[in-house]
Amino acid sequence: MNKVKVGIAGLGRLGAVHAENIAFKIPGAQLMAACSVVDAELDYARNELGAQEVYRDFKQMLEHADIDAVAIVTPNTEHCRQITDAMLAGKHVFSDKPLGVSIEECRQVKKTIAECPEKVFFLGFMRRYDSSYAYAKQKIEEGKIGVPYLVKATSLDPEAVVEGCIRYSASSGGIFIDSGSHDIDLMRWFLGSDVTEVFAAGTTVKHMEFQDVGDCETGCVIYRFANGSLGMGHSGRIAPHGYHIETEIIGTEGHLRIGSIPEKNKAMLYNKDGAVVECVENFPQRFEEAYLLEMQEFISCIQEGRKPGVTAEDGVKAIETAYAVTQSFREGRPVTLSDHEDPI
Amino acid sequence: MNKVKVGIAGLGRLGAVHAENIAFKIPGAQLMAACSVVDAELDYARNELGAQEVYRDFKQMLEHADIDAVAIVTPNTEHCRQITDAMLAGKHVFSDKPLGVSIEECRQVKKTIAECPEKVFFLGFMRRYDSSYAYAKQKIEEGKIGVPYLVKATSLDPEAVVEGCIRYSASSGGIFIDSGSHDIDLMRWFLGSDVTEVFAAGTTVKHMEFQDVGDCETGCVIYRFANGSLGMGHSGRIAPHGYHIETEIIGTEGHLRIGSIPEKNKAMLYNKDGAVVECVENFPQRFEEAYLLEMQEFISCIQEGRKPGVTAEDGVKAIETAYAVTQSFREGRPVTLSDHEDPI
Amino acid sequence: MNKVKVGIAGLGRLGAVHAENIAFKIPGAQLMAACSVVDAELDYARNELGAQEVYRDFKQMLEHADIDAVAIVTPNTEHCRQITDAMLAGKHVFSDKPLGVSIEECRQVKKTIAECPEKVFFLGFMRRYDSSYAYAKQKIEEGKIGVPYLVKATSLDPEAVVEGCIRYSASSGGIFIDSGSHDIDLMRWFLGSDVTEVFAAGTTVKHMEFQDVGDCETGCVIYRFANGSLGMGHSGRIAPHGYHIETEIIGTEGHLRIGSIPEKNKAMLYNKDGAVVECVENFPQRFEEAYLLEMQEFISCIQEGRKPGVTAEDGVKAIETAYAVTQSFREGRPVTLSDHEDPI
Amino acid sequence: MNKVKVGIAGLGRLGAVHAENIAFKIPGAQLMAACSVVDAELDYARNELGAQEVYRDFKQMLEHADIDAVAIVTPNTEHCRQITDAMLAGKHVFSDKPLGVSIEECRQVKKTIAECPEKVFFLGFMRRYDSSYAYAKQKIEEGKIGVPYLVKATSLDPEAVVEGCIRYSASSGGIFIDSGSHDIDLMRWFLGSDVTEVFAAGTTVKHMEFQDVGDCETGCVIYRFANGSLGMGHSGRIAPHGYHIETEIIGTEGHLRIGSIPEKNKAMLYNKDGAVVECVENFPQRFEEAYLLEMQEFISCIQEGRKPGVTAEDGVKAIETAYAVTQSFREGRPVTLSDHEDPI
Repeated sequence: MNKVKVGIAGLGRLGAVHAENIAFKIPGAQLMAACSVVDAELDYARNELGAQEVYRDFKQMLEHADIDAVAIVTPNTEHCRQITDAMLAGKHVFSDKPLGVSIEECRQVKKTIAECPEKVFFLGFMRRYDSSYAYAKQKIEEGKIGVPYLVKATSLDPEAVVEGCIRYSASSGGIFIDSGSHDIDLMRWFLGSDVTEVFAAGTTVKHMEFQDVGDCETGCVIYRFANGSLGMGHSGRIAPHGYHIETEIIGTEGHLRIGSIPEKNKAMLYNKDGAVVECVENFPQRFEEAYLLEMQEFISCIQEGRKPGVTAEDGVKAIETAYAVTQSFREGRPVTLSDHEDPI
Repeated sequence: MNKVKVGIAGLGRLGAVHAENIAFKIPGAQLMAACSVVDAELDYARNELGAQEVYRDFKQMLEHADIDAVAIVTPNTEHCRQITDAMLAGKHVFSDKPLGVSIEECRQVKKTIAECPEKVFFLGFMRRYDSSYAYAKQKIEEGKIGVPYLVKATSLDPEAVVEGCIRYSASSGGIFIDSGSHDIDLMRWFLGSDVTEVFAAGTTVKHMEFQDVGDCETGCVIYRFANGSLGMGHSGRIAPHGYHIETEIIGTEGHLRIGSIPEKNKAMLYNKDGAVVECVENFPQRFEEAYLLEMQEFISCIQEGRKPGVTAEDGVKAIETAYAVTQSFREGRPVTLSDHEDPI
Repeated sequence: MNKVKVGIAGLGRLGAVHAENIAFKIPGAQLMAACSVVDAELDYARNELGAQEVYRDFKQMLEHADIDAVAIVTPNTEHCRQITDAMLAGKHVFSDKPLGVSIEECRQVKKTIAECPEKVFFLGFMRRYDSSYAYAKQKIEEGKIGVPYLVKATSLDPEAVVEGCIRYSASSGGIFIDSGSHDIDLMRWFLGSDVTEVFAAGTTVKHMEFQDVGDCETGCVIYRFANGSLGMGHSGRIAPHGYHIETEIIGTEGHLRIGSIPEKNKAMLYNKDGAVVECVENFPQRFEEAYLLEMQEFISCIQEGRKPGVTAEDGVKAIETAYAVTQSFREGRPVTLSDHEDPI
Repeated sequence: MNKVKVGIAGLGRLGAVHAENIAFKIPGAQLMAACSVVDAELDYARNELGAQEVYRDFKQMLEHADIDAVAIVTPNTEHCRQITDAMLAGKHVFSDKPLGVSIEECRQVKKTIAECPEKVFFLGFMRRYDSSYAYAKQKIEEGKIGVPYLVKATSLDPEAVVEGCIRYSASSGGIFIDSGSHDIDLMRWFLGSDVTEVFAAGTTVKHMEFQDVGDCETGCVIYRFANGSLGMGHSGRIAPHGYHIETEIIGTEGHLRIGSIPEKNKAMLYNKDGAVVECVENFPQRFEEAYLLEMQEFISCIQEGRKPGVTAEDGVKAIETAYAVTQSFREGRPVTLSDHEDPI
């Protein structure tokens, strides 16, 4: 089977994770090209990852590089434009989430993707590919928890990321979009339904700068779904113990809880403080496997002519819902998905 | 030290727990009298608990029995009236929660209690006396989690109680009052602040009778507190694994989580299903110790002339808040504690 | 039902636990008399426990006190003599373990006990009454683990007890007797068989005084049982995290593990160190419930004319086995239970 | 940096794991050649792994293939001969453990390896590279547990492997060699000392065929180390819940326990049985990461001119110790490492 030739755009922290997976860890893929506005990243791509061609311009890469597919790991504001350009250039496209930064551009790019049915579009909701989340989905499909009717989601960043969160708050859209959209996607996936109404509340107690940028440090959300299910979300940015992603799916015959202790590994230390389990520090540690498995699935879809489980529609819904949550937080009232407006 | 002589009113399931604690397990207490409308309960009190006097009428017991204190474990609708009668008769009073069933009667009984400052009034929010909750409170006071700013509470009854819940739904006031008021009290206690606004949503997926009585099977709540803190509550009535009470207090420097696995004991079974921990089945199992410790504290307060940590005001606030939650659930909008009305 | 009148001998740390249980927490028992050579303990018994009669001499108590039963919680060297005197005086007897300090006296007292079949003799292997251990036994009897064929036991004292262990090492008999005999009893109970051979090794790395008294800080033992089962024991005296008692019963269809984390309560703290569970500090904390339940069972046996599950034979076997282990440790060779001699 | 060209010998279950790691997951390695006596395996190597050359004879591969290094994953009886041939042919060598099947051949191959100091020899004690074990080693080196003085090791195969264990019992050497040698290596690594004496006992309760081949189903071992430390080992072959590898390192200031629950992933299911964690089924699941990391380290050592942490000496010591354990099991007496003889 021929290797899928991939060009990557963006080689920041997460971009490097994807690039190394493509270059070294996926038998069916080859990292042919890289695109970045940072010279050091291009050097890294050429010298350490073996990318044969490097570009400073995304369109140049699309036109000139010998590639079948692109992986887009650029700032969120670039996603829709680059997805569009790549699809129209006949490439398979992997894009990091979110799909985009405005609902309008998300809906537009969804149409473009629909017009290229022969190409694979893959949106990086990597949690679906984490072995624990995939296991939960499988158990649900096997009926082990009966009918799922509530998902409780916790997404806590370690305090170490606060500075970055504040700096990028405007472009990231704030906590309910940046962190919440992962949880929204999981809820939709597990519950098999769309959100109809949200209510959100937020608070800031330690880093008041979050307030200054219209964001909050901690957010709580209640979601109503079309099929009568509910969701509860808790996002935060000052977890004292590390990076804590926890999800519970409540069903009529069982509950599934993932990540109750975000342990770094299988070791427990008994010392004068008690029984101590060290926790993961950041998302690359927690989702290392998921990032690899999602990219593997992207490549397999291309090779096997399949469509991935996650779609552009999932990306649109996540953004629409996250914006409704943000609006609810700002206006202090429940917001229905049909009545809310595009806040950007 | 002379033993405190106690008369108990109500010898149902929880009444019997309290009666046996008073009769046998608290050195400073003596079960002198019992009051019930059920003959079998009076026989039990006389023959098995050694109560010297038994009554079918509460006021008769107040007038004639040789008692210093009463323990009220009757239906919720009796609490306020019996507390009032007992305080006015010069007795120390322990009352099971809730304080009452209408906000008006709760406010009134609070005044009555305030007019009897020389008597001990104790409201049975027993969770505060559970060793794990008391430990959490102590750790918070020691500063181990910095400033607490969010409490997440889960209170799930096992499915075995569904029939009773539905039957008593009208008198219990529904899930947000029956189950939620414990969580509200814990939130206020841990956060040191009062609730200003609530938003609730509920769903019913298995036992539709809950809908018929205006109640729900599962409820989710967001609470705002005066000091900027938040609360999230999840109450349910069909837990497949047992009686699950879990509480997490989120602070700036640490989180405290209590009851993540409601294990029955310290044994784990490794078998073909994996590693399995059996769970507690009901509230008497889970809070056996707490029921004893709260009654012990009631007796100690009487003997030492102290006032307990939990007050009539706590009872009023719990009811006011739980009613606002119920109203929010029914009206589908956020309800502020100042604007809501007494729903009964 | 008339209360069983009890006289207690010994009011040290564990004696006080038993005395308070008898005095206050067991409906069917009454603490009538107490015996101690320490005046303060007698004052405590009279003033705080309500003992009507106090004695400095055990025989005096037997002759004069109005008691049906005695609880012996004196130094190990007194047990056999006091059990004998009490049985011959027609009393029911509860004795703290071990049964005695020499095999010869244990065998002799067993005969005496057998000659008083109408009296209850109860040996304080309290772990059997701990709810987790009792649960394990029940699960085994229900066949949940198939045929049990190996027990792994860990008994670690916190380092806080080192000084006492060294001081009492001579009279306690050392680690394999003091700590190991509990594990031996559990192994025999769970496996339903007697030990035929033992091999022990010990080491001392921190408190070399253990070596000076012929004892060790940490001991490891392999036990062979008559029915082909095996046992592994690990005893230690310098646990950094608290009092750690852990037992695993390995069966053909399941394993049962008790006490893998000796948590103080149900709270977990997430802080900069990770997820932290504080541990119990000492045996009264860990076995508070078991001490009460075993005494309750002693009283119930008397009231109901039953014999307890634990017998004098269990006491003899535990001592014989523990001595064989000690001999193996000292001689560095396997010791069979039939060939070893009484080391005292 | 040029890729290290590797030829693999043996493409059974574990061989395939290594081959795929070399072929696809290690940037610095290239799977050039494969050697097997099974045609289907050679087809697999050529067609799925992209091996350019395949051989039925190991020496042919050494002579003709364009390789820098070989990975030996053949039956244990081949290891020493193939290591010798490969070292003398000037290749770097990775060999699966054990080093060999007789002490004499192990000592001999160690000499051969020592005579090729410019070549990397790597012995596949993969557990050292598992992230939890590597973490434990690092914590020990940082002094987090003070002085380690006891290691407790549990290595339980699932019952699914019983048939294979019995069939290969003769060539594998039995449970103490096959399963125990991993534990011996970990003990030596964590304790920094060599074993001086062992005592072993075994039992068979379910599959009596183990007895017929002079092996046992469950083995228990006590190890004494030269520096006064101790070890306890428990190996078994009928774990009902899966593949259970657990190790505890006991130190003067802390204990480290790895793998107390061999969970398959981070999901917990709460259902009618309680809280349930599914367990890993086999060694490839449990040590998937370790197999990759050890091979990565082998390649890095070659590229960087380093020697790995694990040496031929470690392989000799593991075999010598495991044979002494087997001898102790068979003779029912402690065996010192200096007096025991080569049992083969």
